[in-house]
Amino acid sequence: MSKEDLLLLDFWVSPFCMRVKIALAEKGLDYESKEEDLFGGKSELLLKSNPVYQKVPVLLHNGKPLNESAIIVGYIDEKWPSPPLLPACAYGRSQARFWADYIDKKLFDATCTVWRSTGEAVEVAKKDFIEVLKVLEEALGEKTFFGGETFGFVDIVAIPMAGWFYASEKFGNFTVEAECPKLSAWIKRSMQRESVAKVLPDPEKVYDFVVMFRKMQGIE
Amino acid sequence: MSKEDLLLLDFWVSPFCMRVKIALAEKGLDYESKEEDLFGGKSELLLKSNPVYQKVPVLLHNGKPLNESAIIVGYIDEKWPSPPLLPACAYGRSQARFWADYIDKKLFDATCTVWRSTGEAVEVAKKDFIEVLKVLEEALGEKTFFGGETFGFVDIVAIPMAGWFYASEKFGNFTVEAECPKLSAWIKRSMQRESVAKVLPDPEKVYDFVVMFRKMQGIE
Repeated sequence: MSKEDLLLLDFWVSPFCMRVKIALAEKGLDYESKEEDLFGGKSELLLKSNPVYQKVPVLLHNGKPLNESAIIVGYIDEKWPSPPLLPACAYGRSQARFWADYIDKKLFDATCTVWRSTGEAVEVAKKDFIEVLKVLEEALGEKTFFGGETFGFVDIVAIPMAGWFYASEKFGNFTVEAECPKLSAWIKRSMQRESVAKVLPDPEKVYDFVVMFRKMQGIE
Repeated sequence: MSKEDLLLLDFWVSPFCMRVKIALAEKGLDYESKEEDLFGGKSELLLKSNPVYQKVPVLLHNGKPLNESAIIVGYIDEKWPSPPLLPACAYGRSQARFWADYIDKKLFDATCTVWRSTGEAVEVAKKDFIEVLKVLEEALGEKTFFGGETFGFVDIVAIPMAGWFYASEKFGNFTVEAECPKLSAWIKRSMQRESVAKVLPDPEKVYDFVVMFRKMQGIE
């Protein structure tokens, strides 16, 4: 365990915060976590440390703020190279960054749109979400993890979203397992890792959060 | 000059293609460019080399396809490290990636929304665009380039968008220079670089393209 000065501005259900926590766990790094009150009022430290987006996660390393979860995970990998998260070769790295970017652009929004929708829009949202999952399933192919034999960058970027799939499945009345069995097997494999298991909340709790959030937003 | 097998699937007015061309020029790399007919029909090679988005630019390096312009620029920098485009330290790299990501998320869409809009929406679009520019101007601060004294990653990601500002200025009836004098000075400095000057088209030609595109889309 390193004794670095690492402070994470955190929110328990944020998949973006989970990415950073999994990466820190993979590197065996201790850190302090400060839960933000996103609905009550963000801390001064958060507003100051992420002036552009004012969002979690922020990782403060020796007081210097880092923003944007995939960039933070990349920083952690560069700063503490062992065990490596990104592939060693430039081409492999570019491919990992491509998929992380695809996940950033598509996956969370697609899964949330299922439970954010009502009426006929649910079916459209479900179809779109499954399409994104199928693209990812094809990218995974027959590999154990996205990077190959070892759990790495793309897995860390993607797996926290899986904690939110259960809520989408319940509101969309379908299962990811039936639609994408290989991706589903990857989720189960990844969930068994200690770094993931200790970070991802119980899907029922994410579901309860979604129910609460839908009420707050007046979605019925 | 290296004799690498580099083929760029290109489109002359795409700021994303320009990024790749500027990066290749900065590294002194020769490459072949193949202009895509985006309105007539995309090449089989493009469809095959970027199955997820089917968009330019694609850089084929020894036949292996790379997608997404900022990722391609990063790949070029890793593969041919001299002169470096990204900072040497991990924190500096994370900051450069943050700003490149901000530009990707905000800048092109903000500038195009000005000339895509009609009526009262133009003023809203103009205000939003200027807000994005001001965030970038603050990030630039008193520095010569985004990375400091030398032209680098963030400059390469941002400067091609500036070729499109003239069209937004004409349709929005304002000037970037009056709103953001420091950013405007950075644009002029960057435009003087050989790598940029030889890649960026005449703003009048971009304007003509925008006029044509507006007609195609039925925007009057």
